[in-house]
Amino acid sequence: MSVIRTAILGFGTVGEGVYRTIKTHQQELKEVLGAEVEVSAVLVQNEQKERKVDKGILVTTNFEEILKLPQLDIVFEAIVGKEPSFSYLKEALVAGCHIITANKEMFAEHGQELLDSADRQGARVGFEATVAGGVPIIQILQQLLRVNNLETIQGILNGTSNFILTEMRDKQLSFEDALALAQEKGFAEADSGNDIHGFDAYYKTKILSQVAFGEQPETSSFQVAGISGVTIEQIEVAERLGLRFKHVTELKREKGQVQASVQPVLVSPSHPFYHVEGVDNAVNVTTDLVGSLTLQGPGAGMLPTASAMVEDLVHVWHRPLLKFGKQQEKEHLETRQQDGNASYWLVSNLREKSFLKELDYYSEYTGNIHVVKAKEVELEKLKASDREVLAYPIVADQLFESKLEQTEVHVY
Amino acid sequence: MSVIRTAILGFGTVGEGVYRTIKTHQQELKEVLGAEVEVSAVLVQNEQKERKVDKGILVTTNFEEILKLPQLDIVFEAIVGKEPSFSYLKEALVAGCHIITANKEMFAEHGQELLDSADRQGARVGFEATVAGGVPIIQILQQLLRVNNLETIQGILNGTSNFILTEMRDKQLSFEDALALAQEKGFAEADSGNDIHGFDAYYKTKILSQVAFGEQPETSSFQVAGISGVTIEQIEVAERLGLRFKHVTELKREKGQVQASVQPVLVSPSHPFYHVEGVDNAVNVTTDLVGSLTLQGPGAGMLPTASAMVEDLVHVWHRPLLKFGKQQEKEHLETRQQDGNASYWLVSNLREKSFLKELDYYSEYTGNIHVVKAKEVELEKLKASDREVLAYPIVADQLFESKLEQTEVHVY
Repeated sequence: MSVIRTAILGFGTVGEGVYRTIKTHQQELKEVLGAEVEVSAVLVQNEQKERKVDKGILVTTNFEEILKLPQLDIVFEAIVGKEPSFSYLKEALVAGCHIITANKEMFAEHGQELLDSADRQGARVGFEATVAGGVPIIQILQQLLRVNNLETIQGILNGTSNFILTEMRDKQLSFEDALALAQEKGFAEADSGNDIHGFDAYYKTKILSQVAFGEQPETSSFQVAGISGVTIEQIEVAERLGLRFKHVTELKREKGQVQASVQPVLVSPSHPFYHVEGVDNAVNVTTDLVGSLTLQGPGAGMLPTASAMVEDLVHVWHRPLLKFGKQQEKEHLETRQQDGNASYWLVSNLREKSFLKELDYYSEYTGNIHVVKAKEVELEKLKASDREVLAYPIVADQLFESKLEQTEVHVY
Repeated sequence: MSVIRTAILGFGTVGEGVYRTIKTHQQELKEVLGAEVEVSAVLVQNEQKERKVDKGILVTTNFEEILKLPQLDIVFEAIVGKEPSFSYLKEALVAGCHIITANKEMFAEHGQELLDSADRQGARVGFEATVAGGVPIIQILQQLLRVNNLETIQGILNGTSNFILTEMRDKQLSFEDALALAQEKGFAEADSGNDIHGFDAYYKTKILSQVAFGEQPETSSFQVAGISGVTIEQIEVAERLGLRFKHVTELKREKGQVQASVQPVLVSPSHPFYHVEGVDNAVNVTTDLVGSLTLQGPGAGMLPTASAMVEDLVHVWHRPLLKFGKQQEKEHLETRQQDGNASYWLVSNLREKSFLKELDYYSEYTGNIHVVKAKEVELEKLKASDREVLAYPIVADQLFESKLEQTEVHVY
């Protein structure tokens, strides 16, 4: 039986998960590939640290040694940060390997270049694990979009943020205590900035955008906000209104441009994300034919992420499935009218309240928290006039809206 | 540009949806297939009825006329019932066509025969639309199972039943009124027996089982119950307990055999199906690597189902993707211990109450509805002694269980 020879770059949680999955799932891989999968080498940062890998596997800190191996077929990359991972993968492609990566930061920036380079080399690139861990969203999107036209994508793409928001609401924890709990449980790294300030979701959103629309969002219109400003008081008011905070990515095409945002959003019970709790990720795709499709599952973790990478192995070995979408030609696009309607917002830290009188609807809750109905331009003006003001969109159904406007709101 | 010639058998909701999708998505299909897709013929029941189809398309009640067309490539089948659809598709395969079906009743019984016949003819079979309409569960399962080992599948596979249960709870309707509403809205057919007695979900479960486990469940152990016995009183008690009725399919392998059930089940808020409302379908798959993955979307409807069939067109044209799973060899299976633990049930119509005293836990609600904790064998004994007794499993989390046992239950 022939052998597929692989190397794993990085032996943290994900790298070790790939190693263990290949070992424990030899039988399944043999059946589907008609070949054995062998891990020939592992790239580590510290050669002295003891690793639970079989004898005969090259364990090294020197990538060049790995590249010199005869007949290396596939390189799995599970390093953090743009460099040296990007350089390694470029070299691996030139050396004739297929590559599979879980590195969203690197791939958000260099994905197209790697895909182009792979094309030239006749090699293939797997990147399912860069977005939403074990949830096979890239594959499903590519499949759906062969016939369906995409309208919007929404996603909860950062499990750490979702865990923190869930714990704050569920256990009445402060942001700091919930973050500490996430760190204690190993969901957040010691440096949690990437998660709580939205950068992690930002990288994933860029990759999703390239798969879905064939291009990245305009940087100038890409709103990114993390969850670090969300307070327990805001969450309590949201809950009293029957709403939950979720850290939501949204992508859509408007006037021929991809519009993107990553921010805390309040959703009502009928929204598919209301019930996405803990470290789960979820993606909701709306298309012209299928309508609304939601996929929910583990966004991270050793085995789910490893599963996505080992599934990619099957793809890259059999055929080139994963690629970025084709950019639509601008002239073919329907340009939709910018929505000028007023919508609901939860507004915090409002000092200048005369603004409220101009609005169709507003109400005041404890702690200087308001629910208002306002147009986006009105909100922008307000935020420009006072930089302390926080405003979160409320994604609510009509039922919520009619209830809200009919209810005598308790004003403190 | 080359042309792919298709025929559509049956021009009800689904058949017409396929026709419209091919017409409105010519551009997308051309891009992905490199060919134009043409509908050459439509098989109807009544030739006199006016159809909105282009001139030049053969509209006929005679399938033999369609088979005589030169160069027919693909036959879409959207007829109800096992015959004549099975015979038509067999003939179409022999005539060298690929086939794509949405007919679950026929495919649950004859799927393997059609797949074998297609293999012999070098043709391919698409059947994504037979299970869960627009939700691409067959594709995702086949993808996941290339590396992952499957533990269980749960599904809400009948949108009509789910709609009825949702409306009963939400609007306090009787079963009959909710059914009438479903019929009025076009979700249930005039003859709704297939939906409300569980047959529709039964066929779909058989097909899922063949994809997932390579075989159908043992008929003797396949429990099938519809929702026609669910009353508004039961739903109210469930709601008071924080539970919801859902019509749930479950598939798992135990002791080397596929165990299947389709029945009304009570689920708690942490269950992924608690929030699946209206006509949506959902499937939850648990595997060894990914863990729990849930997919939710439109289980029926003209365009979602048509989308699944037209996606299948891309698959059968490019490569043979859809097939039934490989039956695992019995000796390789881990046989898990039959779970002999007591679990929670909502029991209705209990006349002989001495049974309750033998149980660890029970409580009585209005209308002779009890929540009990009992082993399956105990329940079976009880149901055997009184055929009026109804018992529904409660799929609850530990939190629910501990709350339930600690709470002073209000006894009427």
